[in-house]
Amino acid sequence: MVATVTREIRTTGQGDVRDISGEVAAAVSGSGLSAGIVTVSVVGSTAGVTTIEFESGAVTDLDTVFEQLAPRHGYYKHHERWGDDNGSSHVRAALLGPSITVPFADGRLLLGTWQQIVLTEFDTRARNRQVVVQILGE
Amino acid sequence: MVATVTREIRTTGQGDVRDISGEVAAAVSGSGLSAGIVTVSVVGSTAGVTTIEFESGAVTDLDTVFEQLAPRHGYYKHHERWGDDNGSSHVRAALLGPSITVPFADGRLLLGTWQQIVLTEFDTRARNRQVVVQILGE
Amino acid sequence: MVATVTREIRTTGQGDVRDISGEVAAAVSGSGLSAGIVTVSVVGSTAGVTTIEFESGAVTDLDTVFEQLAPRHGYYKHHERWGDDNGSSHVRAALLGPSITVPFADGRLLLGTWQQIVLTEFDTRARNRQVVVQILGE
Repeated sequence: MVATVTREIRTTGQGDVRDISGEVAAAVSGSGLSAGIVTVSVVGSTAGVTTIEFESGAVTDLDTVFEQLAPRHGYYKHHERWGDDNGSSHVRAALLGPSITVPFADGRLLLGTWQQIVLTEFDTRARNRQVVVQILGE
Repeated sequence: MVATVTREIRTTGQGDVRDISGEVAAAVSGSGLSAGIVTVSVVGSTAGVTTIEFESGAVTDLDTVFEQLAPRHGYYKHHERWGDDNGSSHVRAALLGPSITVPFADGRLLLGTWQQIVLTEFDTRARNRQVVVQILGE
Repeated sequence: MVATVTREIRTTGQGDVRDISGEVAAAVSGSGLSAGIVTVSVVGSTAGVTTIEFESGAVTDLDTVFEQLAPRHGYYKHHERWGDDNGSSHVRAALLGPSITVPFADGRLLLGTWQQIVLTEFDTRARNRQVVVQILGE
């Protein structure tokens, strides 16, 4: 009763937020499972997954708060290690977390109408992201 | 081996934090399952779920930090879209996340004595919240 | 198809971040399960679990941002209740969340090379932490 679907998503870098609700819903319905949970997880330490009303204003507001919290051009110890410039990305990703788990019933995600599952890119450059949609149920 | 329990909770608006540990524990014990996980999830994009010591001081402290992070009367792009006043709610909810997953064994949640599961209302008005308690196990 | 592994970890107090990826991977491979999810959860309301590139710079950067967000020596209502000094710990833990859920396939965690599962101690004193690794799958 486990189904695994993997999707590759090309992002444009920090601040890029992608609505992946459709892919997740399709994976759940394609699994043939009726009730259970789906864990949506991004591979890597500079991106995250959450839910938000996917509307450009709210998406920008979230980015603004992350910029205050961990400014892109702030000072980071991480930069000294590898010469990287993505200290802000690591902090943001660790705070938000790499995955969310959403229940489903009757083959349908139990989310609000204005609540979308999103991949949030925090890295400072474009990335190919692997999103794992892991479905458990009956 | 999936059990779904839904609870409706009337909140009073931003800053209202509700201890729902009792409902979750009852759902787990009522499921007849011995070991597994329970995902507690709120439907909608302006509320969240986490754990905290449910004591009025700690609850107020959390609200204070959210107010610094995303002030209720701050400027939000989201307000321009719909004339809404709940930009702070969307940002807070996306940061905290809509669900948590807690393990259980011997029919009992594996939480600390001072660790309660809470629904955090972020919206600027009273809401009827649907909380989904999804239990998987054996 | 549920396996429970519990690990006790002695931390040194606020800012101590421990890489527990090895223990989690061993628990998954020891379960004999091939595909599923693992929920890694800490018991108690003053610690958290997330993923990060486990490198001393990035770990320090995360601590720095938490210190800005909820300063250790700030004012907390929680201190008035019990005479505690760990208001910052409660706020940080509630924000980060007590658990993460990670998918696995072919008995292997689906994480990035530079993405480790970590226990983050937020309490102001050394603690013995119980980490529950709950594995569901087939």
